Amino acid sequence: MAKYVYRFSEGSKDQKDLLGGKGANLAEMTKLGLPVPPGFTITTEACRAYMRDGHVPPELRVEVTMAVREIEDTIGRRLGDFHEPLLVSVRSGAKFSMPGMMETVLNIGLNDASVKGLAEFSGDERFAWDSYRRLIQMFGKTVLDIDGDLFAAALDAKKAERGARTDVELSADDLKELVGTFKQIVRDQCGREFPQHPREQLDMAIEAVFDSWNTERARLYRRRERIPHDLGTAVNVVTMVFGNLGETSGTGVCFTRDPSTGHSGLYGDYLSNAQGEDVVAGIRNTLPLADLEQLDPTSFNDLRQAMRRLETHYRDLCDIEFTIERGKLWLLQTRVGKRTAGAAFRVATQLVDENLITMDEAISRVTGAQLSQLLFPQFDADARKERLTKAMAASPGAAVGEIVLDNAQALARTGAGAQVILVRRETNPDDLQGMIVAAGVLTSRGGKTSHAAVVARGMGTTAVVGAEEVDVDVVAKEVRVAGRVLRPGDVIALDGTTGEVFLGDVPVVDSPVMLYISDGLEAGLAAAEDDATRELVHAVDRVLTHADAARRMRVRANADNADDARRARERGAEGIGLCRTEHQFLGERRQFIEDVVLAEAGEQREAALEKLLPLQRQDFVELLEAMDGLPTTIRLIDPPLHEFLPDLTELAVKVALARDKDAVDPRDETLLAAVQRMHEQNPMLGLRGVRLGLKLPGLFALQIRAIAEATVARRQAGGDPRPEIMVPLVGSVRELHLVRMEAEEILAEVGEAAGLRLDLPIGCMIELPRAALTARRIAEEADFFSFGTNDLTQTTWGFSRDDVEGAFFADYLENGVLTISPFETLDGDGVGALVVAGVTGGRSAKPDLHMGVCGEHGGDPESIHFFHDAGLNYVSCSPFRVPIARLEAGRAAVMRDEVGTA
Amino acid sequence: MAKYVYRFSEGSKDQKDLLGGKGANLAEMTKLGLPVPPGFTITTEACRAYMRDGHVPPELRVEVTMAVREIEDTIGRRLGDFHEPLLVSVRSGAKFSMPGMMETVLNIGLNDASVKGLAEFSGDERFAWDSYRRLIQMFGKTVLDIDGDLFAAALDAKKAERGARTDVELSADDLKELVGTFKQIVRDQCGREFPQHPREQLDMAIEAVFDSWNTERARLYRRRERIPHDLGTAVNVVTMVFGNLGETSGTGVCFTRDPSTGHSGLYGDYLSNAQGEDVVAGIRNTLPLADLEQLDPTSFNDLRQAMRRLETHYRDLCDIEFTIERGKLWLLQTRVGKRTAGAAFRVATQLVDENLITMDEAISRVTGAQLSQLLFPQFDADARKERLTKAMAASPGAAVGEIVLDNAQALARTGAGAQVILVRRETNPDDLQGMIVAAGVLTSRGGKTSHAAVVARGMGTTAVVGAEEVDVDVVAKEVRVAGRVLRPGDVIALDGTTGEVFLGDVPVVDSPVMLYISDGLEAGLAAAEDDATRELVHAVDRVLTHADAARRMRVRANADNADDARRARERGAEGIGLCRTEHQFLGERRQFIEDVVLAEAGEQREAALEKLLPLQRQDFVELLEAMDGLPTTIRLIDPPLHEFLPDLTELAVKVALARDKDAVDPRDETLLAAVQRMHEQNPMLGLRGVRLGLKLPGLFALQIRAIAEATVARRQAGGDPRPEIMVPLVGSVRELHLVRMEAEEILAEVGEAAGLRLDLPIGCMIELPRAALTARRIAEEADFFSFGTNDLTQTTWGFSRDDVEGAFFADYLENGVLTISPFETLDGDGVGALVVAGVTGGRSAKPDLHMGVCGEHGGDPESIHFFHDAGLNYVSCSPFRVPIARLEAGRAAVMRDEVGTA
Repeated sequence: MAKYVYRFSEGSKDQKDLLGGKGANLAEMTKLGLPVPPGFTITTEACRAYMRDGHVPPELRVEVTMAVREIEDTIGRRLGDFHEPLLVSVRSGAKFSMPGMMETVLNIGLNDASVKGLAEFSGDERFAWDSYRRLIQMFGKTVLDIDGDLFAAALDAKKAERGARTDVELSADDLKELVGTFKQIVRDQCGREFPQHPREQLDMAIEAVFDSWNTERARLYRRRERIPHDLGTAVNVVTMVFGNLGETSGTGVCFTRDPSTGHSGLYGDYLSNAQGEDVVAGIRNTLPLADLEQLDPTSFNDLRQAMRRLETHYRDLCDIEFTIERGKLWLLQTRVGKRTAGAAFRVATQLVDENLITMDEAISRVTGAQLSQLLFPQFDADARKERLTKAMAASPGAAVGEIVLDNAQALARTGAGAQVILVRRETNPDDLQGMIVAAGVLTSRGGKTSHAAVVARGMGTTAVVGAEEVDVDVVAKEVRVAGRVLRPGDVIALDGTTGEVFLGDVPVVDSPVMLYISDGLEAGLAAAEDDATRELVHAVDRVLTHADAARRMRVRANADNADDARRARERGAEGIGLCRTEHQFLGERRQFIEDVVLAEAGEQREAALEKLLPLQRQDFVELLEAMDGLPTTIRLIDPPLHEFLPDLTELAVKVALARDKDAVDPRDETLLAAVQRMHEQNPMLGLRGVRLGLKLPGLFALQIRAIAEATVARRQAGGDPRPEIMVPLVGSVRELHLVRMEAEEILAEVGEAAGLRLDLPIGCMIELPRAALTARRIAEEADFFSFGTNDLTQTTWGFSRDDVEGAFFADYLENGVLTISPFETLDGDGVGALVVAGVTGGRSAKPDLHMGVCGEHGGDPESIHFFHDAGLNYVSCSPFRVPIARLEAGRAAVMRDEVGTA
Repeated sequence: MAKYVYRFSEGSKDQKDLLGGKGANLAEMTKLGLPVPPGFTITTEACRAYMRDGHVPPELRVEVTMAVREIEDTIGRRLGDFHEPLLVSVRSGAKFSMPGMMETVLNIGLNDASVKGLAEFSGDERFAWDSYRRLIQMFGKTVLDIDGDLFAAALDAKKAERGARTDVELSADDLKELVGTFKQIVRDQCGREFPQHPREQLDMAIEAVFDSWNTERARLYRRRERIPHDLGTAVNVVTMVFGNLGETSGTGVCFTRDPSTGHSGLYGDYLSNAQGEDVVAGIRNTLPLADLEQLDPTSFNDLRQAMRRLETHYRDLCDIEFTIERGKLWLLQTRVGKRTAGAAFRVATQLVDENLITMDEAISRVTGAQLSQLLFPQFDADARKERLTKAMAASPGAAVGEIVLDNAQALARTGAGAQVILVRRETNPDDLQGMIVAAGVLTSRGGKTSHAAVVARGMGTTAVVGAEEVDVDVVAKEVRVAGRVLRPGDVIALDGTTGEVFLGDVPVVDSPVMLYISDGLEAGLAAAEDDATRELVHAVDRVLTHADAARRMRVRANADNADDARRARERGAEGIGLCRTEHQFLGERRQFIEDVVLAEAGEQREAALEKLLPLQRQDFVELLEAMDGLPTTIRLIDPPLHEFLPDLTELAVKVALARDKDAVDPRDETLLAAVQRMHEQNPMLGLRGVRLGLKLPGLFALQIRAIAEATVARRQAGGDPRPEIMVPLVGSVRELHLVRMEAEEILAEVGEAAGLRLDLPIGCMIELPRAALTARRIAEEADFFSFGTNDLTQTTWGFSRDDVEGAFFADYLENGVLTISPFETLDGDGVGALVVAGVTGGRSAKPDLHMGVCGEHGGDPESIHFFHDAGLNYVSCSPFRVPIARLEAGRAAVMRDEVGTA
């Protein structure tokens, strides 16, 4: 038979599943001999039984009776006693912290009789009645489900009646009257008396905590945090101790190191003559912990010893809640403390130096998300700022610059040495040039997965998106926001971490950690302004160095040109996982693609393609030079060609208006016919990728020839080029076979002409469900696989990334269908299952098949752990995310079973 | 060690894998004691070894030597003998017939010496030299890879020189000269002599047959027919017998029953003094087989006995090739004969009546495709027709009618009693009304999976699509084709089986089988004009009755209204598997949907929805009445709402032009804003299905309420309504959960108001990869699954059905990436794997979960077998295809391991 109740003396910190976080830590402290008020924990298993059966298991009542008696015997007071009543708190405590989500009831055990005993025992009648008042209010609201405003209103009325500004000014008699009023509220609302029997209070409170597990807000919270619904909560029943019994009493919170900087030492706040909830309410200002040394040196000393004991025992920064009751210290809670990103790195390496943890543990104590925070420049916290609006923080950082509304302005102003912020309604691939030179991007539409957001994150450019209050009027060339009209040239500042937009210049502070990452340790240390920052740079260096040694996966970068490739390499990229060649067809070269599309006959098209060959070859020569000696995966052109043509509706309107005036440009007519011919209902599911390559002879051939010739050129120049040819959107092995045949012929021809052997690896994207499902066969023709989880997410879910975010993602996050965008973090159950199928299938044909992932997920911490577990050889991500991926790949290699399940 | 050579006396018909079809049947006939020329078969295993190793296995040469010696000993002639030479043929013979794909070489064994022996032995010098000439020609072309035109030109030159019209007019000396010329051609082209050694000829011919397995055309054929590439071919070496040794010799082909009607008796053709290739060349007219009885009663009698023997033994219609050499009958090949659809049904039931096969076997001998052919009306074969063009046969049948260009014309003319053909550039859901009343549909664009094709097939309406020569000018209201200008009212005729379009009226003959299906046996028999047709109607009845008894899967229909439902029920549908409610929002009701979309506030929208409620309720009352007592699955609205709005580009042009003249209709402005707001890049991957239902409160609720109220109305009227509520496009269990909560509330409310218990099943489509991959969890909230394999195919392959066909399907069928459109026949490896995952996942949560499939694949024979094997409970298809699905579901239940693998 299950044991549903554990005394604090029976449990340990490793029993969070059974006792919840709070219960496990209370037990651990008890075991360490630290002063914890007597109490016990009702297990999560009891909660699960309650949820399953709809009632509390009968054995639980017996076990609770015995556990309460033990407390009574230990401290010599009894629940409901007329003279020296025992009071207990009933607190929830699940495995994962769910702050503010669930219920607590204090002062259980008070009734019309024991309130007098409490007055007598404490020698403070006002305190006793206030405690009783609090019980009825909290119990009424939490357990009896009475509208809390009724109690608050009665309290306010009483204060008004007495002319009192705060509760403290009410007298014992006032509170006694208030207890009467509160009991009447209970009677009116529930049709029953406030329960006088302490055991009834206790049982009802326990059930209320169980019930609070399944409130709508708790369920919503868990979905968002991806905590399983079937865990249940534990319930802690703890002897009440009081910090509000006069000046020798008090309550506080402390940390074993500074959670904001990681500085070693004691940090915390103390409030004398107060209860925990008063600290939260912020009625009086707290004192720094150090002041306690003067007030109560004995308790301070006890606390300091307890803190040291806990940190050594937990081998981490601890966060502690304590109460001093008439000069006696009690510890009410401890846990591993939350900390800032910088503190996390410093604390982790400090603990290594103190021989408390290993480097493997140290890297598991910091996260890629924390590292990412350290890489961005930040606005000077002390600067004065005028905020214009706040929207979605799409790509972090701090950017200041002149407003520009298009590529031309952006290029002109940056050419003139200005910093610019590109402000658009939304962006598309045409805006790329402007985005590249801009310090920041602001859009009035789109969300975290809009083009602006994705591209900006990829480039590490600050972006704030979906700022609905910002009205971008490109015709009037003005931006209206917060009642102001801004024009190109006006300066604004974007905080990509908070989503805030400020007017005018705001001073920015550079990140020494970023300088360390790109320019080395010396550069990072030189940029640090104080010892703490220098320690931080050292800490990051040690962590990253260890992660690099520990990780099994390689980290490559997505880079489309030599500049990006160099930047990625500086940041530790060990190759290019994805070079998107279509980006090389934008700008001035767009004209050539129009020619290719408009070309009627094969010869014309060949001539148009011919013009692209030297340009493409030069692209690849530069790229391969930047990545000399490292693998460089080049993806053949992927998107539908009509993306390079004008928009159908715009062009149709233009031509219709011109026709109306008999003034149509013949080229527009030709173009419109081509755009109409190539128009697709669902271009994402249309003529693109390998389909385009097979449909339009010469297109892939041009690119393959350019790669081959660039390879020859680099080798002849004494370099070590390592290009890999990647075929996009393969759904069937035969598609890859046909391209491979063509490619091998070209490679042989170019190689023969140069007297070189060109046996470049030829592989494909696995980005369609069918590719993953038939990976075993595709592997027969592939030298490598690269999982394209962006597209795979689109087809697995049937979501178009271009469309869905605006349309319904917000609703879906709200109603809990999604806990996070599957374009940000890999959907393990759906898309992940296909990745695993692809890996398994591919390796069943070729056990050593080299596999990686490219695209957004390659830089997402949680997804990186998934890819490690799935057995991929590398991840490829944006240059900015390379250090984050290095860290997370290292963490994935050293961590075991620490990732929560959802 | 493998045995590579089987004498005909060693094999049997069950060894097609090893001996190929021809070899296995030659062995079987030999075993039966029938007169087969001595010979042997080289196994497919030898071919596979040859392909693997690049050379013939050494053991094979030894085995061939021994097998040839046995033939020589048996018939007392030797290869290459100067006096009585043995000649052999070398013929390919794979497991699956690949007509015309592979190689044959006759007369192996002739050389400069043995040709004289043959002249002496046959007593016919001309015959001997002609045979040698044929060998060099065939060997040169096939084995030595010489351009066949060189030999043909030399032959023509010789005929011209002699003034001969045919080969037969050339003398022995002419042919002798020609042999010299042919040998010179070999010398010139190959730089070597024509091989004189018979064994060298034989070995080279065997290798040539092996090589012919992997020619490009053979590979292409196999991909199209889905025959695996790794089977290899067998090679048959057979003693030559000659039908061209004078008037007592001859050759022919015969069938044990009439392959075009199924009539019992002997059918065939005979050509005296000829070889098989002469029959093929069609130089002389053949005689009916019956004439052989006069010419050579002995051989005729032998043949008749052999035919009986074979039919009894094979228990099926056999097709036989034979040669009579100087009065002696030889059987050269037999196989189960191809036959017409009508013959297939008659032969199958005849064989049952003759106690040769069981009814289980009978239904496995006919196919759904054959049944389908019997259901369509046909053009009178004898009528005179003027053909205008030929395009894609998209939906079979024969339709005659006046040209109409839009819905209005279609309704007006059919209202006036005319038959009409709807002619459009392409169709979309707006054209549905016109398509419903039209006898046929002709489009100038689109392919077999275009809207016109799919909808027409679904309705059983004749359609010819993609007729590029047809120029539809809706402005001029004319149709230009083949130099003619046709106008509405002109009569055309469409043959949906051949894709032909004719000018004017062409008489049509109704299908008695179709009348039997919809109106019963008596009606079918009454419509039959002769005994053969009456026998056919009986045969179909017996086959379908047995299939219904045998099948494990139920057959439902896709029907959106009561008329379709009734039609489906007449044809044997056991429920509705898919009622697409969006079709109920077209026509006049479209206005309401515009109102819903344009409504700014919730109240306005509710008012707009409110107007739809009584209409929807009436739709469902009628549907449930038509399907009384049978399950009726109603799918909540699926497509994106903007499908109900005007086209963006058209509207933008209209508004732009109107603005230019300051004459914009304000409603158009509002509409344009809404269309722009709702515009999606990829609507197929956008806001539709359950996403729309969750995003737009009230929409699903309206439909659920209408279903609930209709159910109450039908029950109160004493009916037995069995609606099932189906949620489209579910990708996550939570989506279904949210809709289920809403639905259960409405059902409870409507039920309570009526005093009835409404516990309608609530389930969902499985039409996204993610739904299939997470089926176990979705099953927890689902009472049933319905696989939407159309959408599942789109996302699994990343193909949009609207787009891809025109863009690249033709190329993909050409280059072998696709062997058939995955929208026609389920792609087992990709989409099928997800169906299996969905079934397994769903049943792991609920072992009895009811599952079916709706959409095109539900009526496709091959796919039906897949669904049977996957364990589905039913298929749902268009009403027209219900009998086909009944038959195929029955066949799937009785057939084992007979479906080819690909």
